[in-house]
Amino acid sequence: MGSEMIYQAGGATCHGHLAMPDETQWGPGPYAGVLVAPAFWGLSPIETGYADKLAEMGYVALGVDIYGDGKLSDKREDANAWMDEFNQNRALLAARMQGALTALKGLPMVDEGRIGAVGYCFGGKGVLDLARTGAEFQAGVTMHGVLQPPESGSTRIKPALLICDGWDDPLDPPEVKVAFAEEMNAHCADWQMLVFGHTVHAFTNTNADGYSPRAAQRSWDAMCSFFAEHL
Amino acid sequence: MGSEMIYQAGGATCHGHLAMPDETQWGPGPYAGVLVAPAFWGLSPIETGYADKLAEMGYVALGVDIYGDGKLSDKREDANAWMDEFNQNRALLAARMQGALTALKGLPMVDEGRIGAVGYCFGGKGVLDLARTGAEFQAGVTMHGVLQPPESGSTRIKPALLICDGWDDPLDPPEVKVAFAEEMNAHCADWQMLVFGHTVHAFTNTNADGYSPRAAQRSWDAMCSFFAEHL
Repeated sequence: MGSEMIYQAGGATCHGHLAMPDETQWGPGPYAGVLVAPAFWGLSPIETGYADKLAEMGYVALGVDIYGDGKLSDKREDANAWMDEFNQNRALLAARMQGALTALKGLPMVDEGRIGAVGYCFGGKGVLDLARTGAEFQAGVTMHGVLQPPESGSTRIKPALLICDGWDDPLDPPEVKVAFAEEMNAHCADWQMLVFGHTVHAFTNTNADGYSPRAAQRSWDAMCSFFAEHL
Repeated sequence: MGSEMIYQAGGATCHGHLAMPDETQWGPGPYAGVLVAPAFWGLSPIETGYADKLAEMGYVALGVDIYGDGKLSDKREDANAWMDEFNQNRALLAARMQGALTALKGLPMVDEGRIGAVGYCFGGKGVLDLARTGAEFQAGVTMHGVLQPPESGSTRIKPALLICDGWDDPLDPPEVKVAFAEEMNAHCADWQMLVFGHTVHAFTNTNADGYSPRAAQRSWDAMCSFFAEHL
């Protein structure tokens, strides 16, 4: 149900995935918009599928081509190399996300005052880094998104944030969660964290060792409630 | 809509508040049951009101007379003295809760295989201590419930647990939350924690300094979803 959307972001030509609500069901709009930022493999059918599901709920959803040029790999070493470039240049990650945000807001059927973003794993870091730069949107969600701040820190964070995380995620051990909470208390007026016990990284991903159907469903439901509250 | 229910628990005669679903709306039952354990003031109109709301949702709800004899005070020193007795005798707290659980399960219109419990503040400690003794129920929720374990520790915890807590609750500082998570990982197969930023103790209580309409609503909604999943 989605289609390719070409946009420019952070120096790259990006091939996003745009999914639109059915106008016969949802009316003519304008609609709230949601960015869907992918895990470190690149924009895959998992995240374009989420965008399609969000469109079925009445949102204009844009799957973010985080690496540009539609780069996607199923080889961990490729994806790690791509991600490492961003981990060493967090401003580039924020810029790539900001470009997608600008593109989404620029769509005529999108209400630019009702914008959400959800990110998975590395894409969660992208949502947080976008928020940390002071970007204008209303609601951000991370799913096993990586919480460590960039060296540049945060400005005042504008969106409300919902963090969905596994207690046993080795990328976000307890001390990282506590430090993140303190960072948010300092910079974000409205944040929540939903932590799942006995849950590791990538709990939403059916292909991952850490997949947890229970945590996947609960975090999806929590996201839906959160977007309904804020968008 | 509720009525007084006299039951025996932990050596005391207790004056609970029993709220029943409307049979014309919910059918003849049997219904799932929910214990509502009060804050340290004793069973007050706040908690009997929650029990009434749960009955409107189709649950048989029993407001727990935690101190026995219907003891309730609006004087902090009275309530603190009552609570202190239990804090120094956690087995008594568990026994008082177990008595309420037994009474609820014994009602003919209650399905004893579908039992939940929610506790506020000290009542949250009661729900946790009940769970820590290995009591048989399906779903436990704490609202700004106090997380420190008793010296006797936990056996295997049977219910799924949802902890709703303020990040800034001085009764549950970060190190207590982390220790609790580790306790749960060791003893409870299904636990979650929903933490609210910029939120202190007693966020559900409209009379409390810490009242947060936002956290109160979000935690209520999370509890409703949780009970719907498990009961």
